[in-house]
Amino acid sequence: MDTFAARGYNNASLAEIAERAGVTQAGVLHYFRSKALLLTSVLELRDRTDIEQLGAERPRGLAFLRHLVDTARRNAEREGIVRLYAVLSAESVTDDHPAQPYFRDRYTGLRAFVTDALIEACGLPETDRARAHDAANAIIAVMDGLQVQWLLDPGSVDMAASTDLAVTSLLATLAPDRFGRPGA
Amino acid sequence: MDTFAARGYNNASLAEIAERAGVTQAGVLHYFRSKALLLTSVLELRDRTDIEQLGAERPRGLAFLRHLVDTARRNAEREGIVRLYAVLSAESVTDDHPAQPYFRDRYTGLRAFVTDALIEACGLPETDRARAHDAANAIIAVMDGLQVQWLLDPGSVDMAASTDLAVTSLLATLAPDRFGRPGA
Repeated sequence: MDTFAARGYNNASLAEIAERAGVTQAGVLHYFRSKALLLTSVLELRDRTDIEQLGAERPRGLAFLRHLVDTARRNAEREGIVRLYAVLSAESVTDDHPAQPYFRDRYTGLRAFVTDALIEACGLPETDRARAHDAANAIIAVMDGLQVQWLLDPGSVDMAASTDLAVTSLLATLAPDRFGRPGA
Repeated sequence: MDTFAARGYNNASLAEIAERAGVTQAGVLHYFRSKALLLTSVLELRDRTDIEQLGAERPRGLAFLRHLVDTARRNAEREGIVRLYAVLSAESVTDDHPAQPYFRDRYTGLRAFVTDALIEACGLPETDRARAHDAANAIIAVMDGLQVQWLLDPGSVDMAASTDLAVTSLLATLAPDRFGRPGA
């Protein structure tokens, strides 16, 4: 995880990974077959850990949106994980990258989940699904984009405050009667 | 530009770049000294082109925020440039990356410019600068994050619509009397 976060996938060497893990390269390949499969395993392990931390009940609706803001807050204390995802998600759009299907599927799932949470939190009719979908993409994008800015210049970026401001503002636009005019 | 966008900096080979440009590797190095300096030159060339397209008068205040939404719209027709920035900005947070100072400075400048535009558009007092700064980071983040999602799955991401929704919503939160309750 540390090596992929520090170097990206393409520039990570199996020799370095093996040395940091205290095994031989053959040992790494015995368990993971290839660098590409090792990467996928690292990402899946991270996802399992996050899902387990959420507990049995995954929050829904407004609680899920608040959970995203909490995630942005906690992320400011786990630079390694943030770097892993920021580097690999963007690197995955390069030619023939082994994590491309992983990130495409991850965004598809997250997009559906955030869209549903917005619809539920705002009490929107099904006809507003396209707008909720655009707002969901914006929320996911805010979280991702803030990570790159924060990694480059942590003193200038408050990930939790900016995420909260974006989520709160989008809720007020989607459901002005429920969430409108915050602070007014 | 194409090679850095398709492979990232670390994985790009000077041999490929030289071949695509129809010169020898020695020829590339004669003009650019190193792969790192070639990368910086490519990024600076792009910036100059964008600034020239803006014309002599850089828009301010609300016009600048609208210009960002227009940029998101135009970006959907220039996949190569979008990929270049998405890949390199995230890769720049890896260890010893040559474009790290470039992207740190770029975000610093953009952050100041978007913050000033928000303050001007919303008529905010200087005491609201911290909030405008958080909103500016969110706007920049939305644009960046949408690019990665769009590159992975263009049919599921409307960059202009999501950027517009985020900017409009943040304006309404910062200045409810001026921009509040859109669509209500």
